[in-house]
Amino acid sequence: MEQEFFTRVDGELYCEGVKVKEAAETFGTPMYLYSAAHLRKRYRDFEEALKGSPHRICFAVKACSNVNILDLFAKEGAGFDIVSGGELYRVIKAGGDPRSCVYAGVGKSKAEIEYAVENEILYFGVESEPELERINAAAKKLGKKARVALRINPDVDAHTHEYITTGKSENKFGLAPEAARTLYLKMASAYPYVEAVGAQVHIGSQITETAPFLEGAKKLAAFIKELKVQGVSLKYFDIGGGLGIVYQNEDPATPAALVNELLPLVKELGMTFVCEMGRYMCGNAAMLVASVEYVKRTAKKNFVVVDAGMNDLLRPALYEAYHEIKAVEEKEEKFVCDVVGPICESADIFRKDCEIPAVEADDLLAICSAGAYGFSMSSNYNSRGRAAEVLVEGDKARLIRKRESFEDQVRNETTCE
Amino acid sequence: MEQEFFTRVDGELYCEGVKVKEAAETFGTPMYLYSAAHLRKRYRDFEEALKGSPHRICFAVKACSNVNILDLFAKEGAGFDIVSGGELYRVIKAGGDPRSCVYAGVGKSKAEIEYAVENEILYFGVESEPELERINAAAKKLGKKARVALRINPDVDAHTHEYITTGKSENKFGLAPEAARTLYLKMASAYPYVEAVGAQVHIGSQITETAPFLEGAKKLAAFIKELKVQGVSLKYFDIGGGLGIVYQNEDPATPAALVNELLPLVKELGMTFVCEMGRYMCGNAAMLVASVEYVKRTAKKNFVVVDAGMNDLLRPALYEAYHEIKAVEEKEEKFVCDVVGPICESADIFRKDCEIPAVEADDLLAICSAGAYGFSMSSNYNSRGRAAEVLVEGDKARLIRKRESFEDQVRNETTCE
Repeated sequence: MEQEFFTRVDGELYCEGVKVKEAAETFGTPMYLYSAAHLRKRYRDFEEALKGSPHRICFAVKACSNVNILDLFAKEGAGFDIVSGGELYRVIKAGGDPRSCVYAGVGKSKAEIEYAVENEILYFGVESEPELERINAAAKKLGKKARVALRINPDVDAHTHEYITTGKSENKFGLAPEAARTLYLKMASAYPYVEAVGAQVHIGSQITETAPFLEGAKKLAAFIKELKVQGVSLKYFDIGGGLGIVYQNEDPATPAALVNELLPLVKELGMTFVCEMGRYMCGNAAMLVASVEYVKRTAKKNFVVVDAGMNDLLRPALYEAYHEIKAVEEKEEKFVCDVVGPICESADIFRKDCEIPAVEADDLLAICSAGAYGFSMSSNYNSRGRAAEVLVEGDKARLIRKRESFEDQVRNETTCE
Repeated sequence: MEQEFFTRVDGELYCEGVKVKEAAETFGTPMYLYSAAHLRKRYRDFEEALKGSPHRICFAVKACSNVNILDLFAKEGAGFDIVSGGELYRVIKAGGDPRSCVYAGVGKSKAEIEYAVENEILYFGVESEPELERINAAAKKLGKKARVALRINPDVDAHTHEYITTGKSENKFGLAPEAARTLYLKMASAYPYVEAVGAQVHIGSQITETAPFLEGAKKLAAFIKELKVQGVSLKYFDIGGGLGIVYQNEDPATPAALVNELLPLVKELGMTFVCEMGRYMCGNAAMLVASVEYVKRTAKKNFVVVDAGMNDLLRPALYEAYHEIKAVEEKEEKFVCDVVGPICESADIFRKDCEIPAVEADDLLAICSAGAYGFSMSSNYNSRGRAAEVLVEGDKARLIRKRESFEDQVRNETTCE
């Protein structure tokens, strides 16, 4: 189920109709290999669950920002959850409609706000009053009206990694309900160039249960109801993102289950359901394919050294995240080893003490469920060019991002004197 | 002492003779601001300590890889500790001598090894026998003789962050002494295209005491002595890198103190002292200068949201590293706040509950001691262009890396179909 478009036939690993091994030979390693069918299916699961009710499904660009993947989602009819001017630029570059974008983030700069106002995004997810002031000023300057949804911090614990819990009152995100209420009530008079069109909660990421979502949504619904009594009507009920996926043995809620619990609240208010999913859409859609450089056997341990490193996939080092590792070609013999990268840090480990087929140099390993926060967090650490990205559609594999060269890495470094 | 070339004069922060505020106005923020004088001084401290004894001081490129900074070290006469083909390319691009390079890392690819053999680097720091095989094959193919130093894993605890402890036997690095001995003894016959010229230990990073270095060096000396009896003579005694700096209230050993303890061991063996310092050379040499976007006051906390994020400086999120934060312009009033970035993760915090001057939007903050593992670990996460890098020499500030544009970020993403 989790990586359903990555299947094994006669011992050989496929991404849809493409042999992973052949893609690796064509495009080299390390390589992010994405399944277009998986991306589409995940989007359509949400569409299906929301069919017949007013809704807007946004893809969270930060999870996977390649222009070609945004293009795929745009063609499905997705909106986009953006968090920077760079992400808006990517959406536009991909042919996406800026008017389908909702813009989150606590640190929007003046230039970014003007760029978004100019492009008439759907709404800003506003995280503080000073930000609202800036949006109002930008809209005034540009002769536009900017749409906003305040992000309410519901003080809900999403029961996920502390680094990706975002709905607690000690987090930097959103506004306390009382502060948000004050702002909604004075908005029309104090900020005449903005229009309140929605309200939002966003409690975190990789949340596998519906309960924290429901808790957040209930708080948001109560908030909106009260606001309506006070004369402020809103259109968009934005539950944020954060639906989890299977990395190991999680049992995440389905879109249907989630929608089933939340939609009645939204319908009762006569509003449009908005969600901003990233990891759910793309997390299981890709593998990071790496070649084995060395098998290093020591008295204490076996180390399988691969050509992908923490610069390619930071999640294990940053969040102690689990990623399943598979041999691209099956082998009878297995061994226990640490799968490590080439970076000169002890943190550069993909998995410790795992049992995998007894691979040798030049064999291929697939680091699974690497589609979300994989390439988008990658860096040039150790002066390593970033990986190639390849998108599979049926039996065709297409390069969607060229591997970085040495020249690419120094391009912006002005010549020595 | 720690950031001695960053001084405050009449309440105004300077980098050497340049006002930090003026550099920020000229080059924008976020900006890495480096002091050339600091870089030179740190290099010369080591030169001074080693004067009169055969030595080779290598700068660890991974700590700070900008071509212009490598150029500065090359002009000082430094060698380079490289960990990838990309780093060798940078050294050559900077006008450095490849023959002054020592090459570390557990995952050297065939292409990287050939590139380094071709360029006749000083030696490979070999981490496994399969790597030695590859080096031998590459040298044979290219009609060269490759020089090597085996990296001995001394099983020493460096008493530093577990992510940057590299000299324990459960780490992926180096060879156990017995395995290394076997390899040295059979090298001439089994690997005729390589020549053993040295031996190395490298126990970790940000080590503030001399004791772990001495422990590692003693083990190395004993190993080399025994090897000599068995007929293998080596020239280079490589103590690796890892000397720590002041981030907060550390009291790191000086180069003089370190050399004073280690050099007698090297002299007794009649060998050349090699070290590979990165953080020590450049860690305190730079500030990451950021602008305040918003001051967000909530019932629970004040948040100062700046325009630099964990994509610019990963160390606080990855290692829970401490970086002092200073206001570029002094203010009488202070407040307690979290200094956070714009990234949509709770991990994007530079400091929690710190007391700093009560800054307002558009004020500048300096995140101190950001020269090592700062820019070199930075990424485009959240589609944010990487920061500008600026090098100060006296009263001149020079752009050494242009801020990344939106276009830069998508350059390698082949056009949508």
